[in-house]
Amino acid sequence: MQIEVDYRFPTGVNAEKQAQVIALGQTVGTWDASFAYREASFLAHKAEVVNIENRTDGSALATVRFPVANVEGDIASLLTMIFGKYSMAGPAKVTAIRLPSGYGQRPKFGITGVRSLLNTPSRPLVMAIYKPALGLSAADHAQILSKVAGAGLDIIKDDEILGNLHSAPTLERLKACRPVIEDMQQKNGRSLLYAVNVTGKASQLLAQARQLVAAGANALLLNVLSYGFSVLEALVADPEISVPIFAHPALAGAWCGAPDHGFSYSALLGTLFAHAGADAVLYPSHYGSLPFEAAEEFRIRDALRSRNVFPVPSAGIHPGVVPRAIADYGQDVILNAGTGIMDHPDGPAEGVRAFFEALEHAEPGQSFELAQIPAGALRRALEKWGTP
Amino acid sequence: MQIEVDYRFPTGVNAEKQAQVIALGQTVGTWDASFAYREASFLAHKAEVVNIENRTDGSALATVRFPVANVEGDIASLLTMIFGKYSMAGPAKVTAIRLPSGYGQRPKFGITGVRSLLNTPSRPLVMAIYKPALGLSAADHAQILSKVAGAGLDIIKDDEILGNLHSAPTLERLKACRPVIEDMQQKNGRSLLYAVNVTGKASQLLAQARQLVAAGANALLLNVLSYGFSVLEALVADPEISVPIFAHPALAGAWCGAPDHGFSYSALLGTLFAHAGADAVLYPSHYGSLPFEAAEEFRIRDALRSRNVFPVPSAGIHPGVVPRAIADYGQDVILNAGTGIMDHPDGPAEGVRAFFEALEHAEPGQSFELAQIPAGALRRALEKWGTP
Repeated sequence: MQIEVDYRFPTGVNAEKQAQVIALGQTVGTWDASFAYREASFLAHKAEVVNIENRTDGSALATVRFPVANVEGDIASLLTMIFGKYSMAGPAKVTAIRLPSGYGQRPKFGITGVRSLLNTPSRPLVMAIYKPALGLSAADHAQILSKVAGAGLDIIKDDEILGNLHSAPTLERLKACRPVIEDMQQKNGRSLLYAVNVTGKASQLLAQARQLVAAGANALLLNVLSYGFSVLEALVADPEISVPIFAHPALAGAWCGAPDHGFSYSALLGTLFAHAGADAVLYPSHYGSLPFEAAEEFRIRDALRSRNVFPVPSAGIHPGVVPRAIADYGQDVILNAGTGIMDHPDGPAEGVRAFFEALEHAEPGQSFELAQIPAGALRRALEKWGTP
Repeated sequence: MQIEVDYRFPTGVNAEKQAQVIALGQTVGTWDASFAYREASFLAHKAEVVNIENRTDGSALATVRFPVANVEGDIASLLTMIFGKYSMAGPAKVTAIRLPSGYGQRPKFGITGVRSLLNTPSRPLVMAIYKPALGLSAADHAQILSKVAGAGLDIIKDDEILGNLHSAPTLERLKACRPVIEDMQQKNGRSLLYAVNVTGKASQLLAQARQLVAAGANALLLNVLSYGFSVLEALVADPEISVPIFAHPALAGAWCGAPDHGFSYSALLGTLFAHAGADAVLYPSHYGSLPFEAAEEFRIRDALRSRNVFPVPSAGIHPGVVPRAIADYGQDVILNAGTGIMDHPDGPAEGVRAFFEALEHAEPGQSFELAQIPAGALRRALEKWGTP
């Protein structure tokens, strides 16, 4: 199988012509008589336009098929080929990328592996984010963790903007939080994953990741688009990184937010993040205030799950969203809440409990009507945030 | 000095409100009474809105000032802070980023260092790109190089889409080309830089770069946005990478091409590439067919030169452009041509000679009128490509 890419061109662009420019310009380029003896070699690298679909809204969708031999089986060389120079040529949006199933990497853990680590075979997982994002000490992190861990939280992550800062160095955060995780493991026979944010220049980041894992980190968080796909791929390929990697979508709006430029969110956060080998991918949900369509969210969900990658809809997630999330996702989903847990009126532990109560009340035959919810964490959450 | 970022919001967006969302949401986030004792710490991390400029076209420019203590002195953590999550919140474009001069890295070579390596203190440098991009063997590369090197070329680079492919592995290309470079060095007492494209997963890429330099590579090429800023920064910081790094803008249109999303080209390819430590930065010129404004190109030029980084306007560069390029750039510029050299009617060597003739004819007191140009390489180039 080859690589197929759909490009959408807005009204007024000659899609057929532009697709041909891509097929030639993004592969071999032109050659002349002096290289005529190499023609077979050039043709083996040339892409071809396989479809042009003119749409009723005036836009057009062109499908270009590229030889796998042009790239290195990774995402970075793929990006350069399919959109490197051409991205600067005028309006065009990459709406879908179809890769051979063997292209790229598989997650080392993914849905099944993360479930196995947490000894939780089937229900949705509940994930929190340390808040406030900046200004907490390492000890503050441990204090927050002890509250939410006691309430049964599955996963917690650093805020993506919290790097290796003087006010709370990464290794110190981990060291402060490890005893809480170990304590919970002893009490409940069950782990809690803390996805520690790995940062820095690529060489430092890879060394830091190994150091963190050696010091007991049981999950990592990476801002893939800030640091680079090649960094995610190196982490996935590294045998010392024996923990799941949570991929954060920071900066994705700069790549995907525009109507006629860049990538669709599903091509980037779905297809490419999955083929890079992330174990779980965070992305904006349509439950909150972000301008995000349900259909696009579900394309991400399906692209991830097709490769055993855990979907992690984020932003706007609070206990009141749970029934809709279950309807949309079923069980294989990580419900990731920042303020939706930390800002519960009765504190973070009650925020976690509200999610687990919500999971019970979202089951078939149960009611999610406020009047039917007994006094407690969920009721308090619904009184604050309502249901979407 | 702190970090200042200008965000442009289109008509209809409440810029004041959104700027406040950025200042709080992209830094500390919210905190409540339970962390009141840490208020001073939170305030030390919070950004502030320092200006709102409402423009006559209905758009607004908001300036937000961020504490340097929030980031790690690199580009990746900066990107996450200034636009990570917020990029997904709706239309907004980062039009300018003002960093403390000590922020990030300085080029190891830059304009002065590259000139010194080439023993060419003052004139514009002439750079070529191997073409066709894919399908040539390593021996073909050496054959092309011997033609252009004999004509006095200063720099040549791989096409950015040519990675470490089976048809011409990177190390083989270098090994085939090294003898040509050494031969020229012996004949002319002067080097020629070959910027070899480094690719792969981050760990492999860094190892490959060291291996290439050890094997005699005297320059490297990196697709910064495909592989990640953290990879560029690691290369710059690596003492074994004792050669200039040419930064390619592949994918920049996905970050910068949209009117109301992403980044301005000058913020990304000017400010951020320069502070990451690139020695020379390629970017689209306004001389060719790419939709690129002169004013934006000159902002890139100035951002690069302010840190001794060589500007490399590319695309649409041919000998006929030289007088305009000299008027726009003066001497500190690298004129980078792909087809503008390789597709000269009389071959690549004549393509190089046409550039050097053009540099002579572009000097004060000389004429660039076709009628005044004697028969030869330049005249043939002007007959093919004209002047812009």
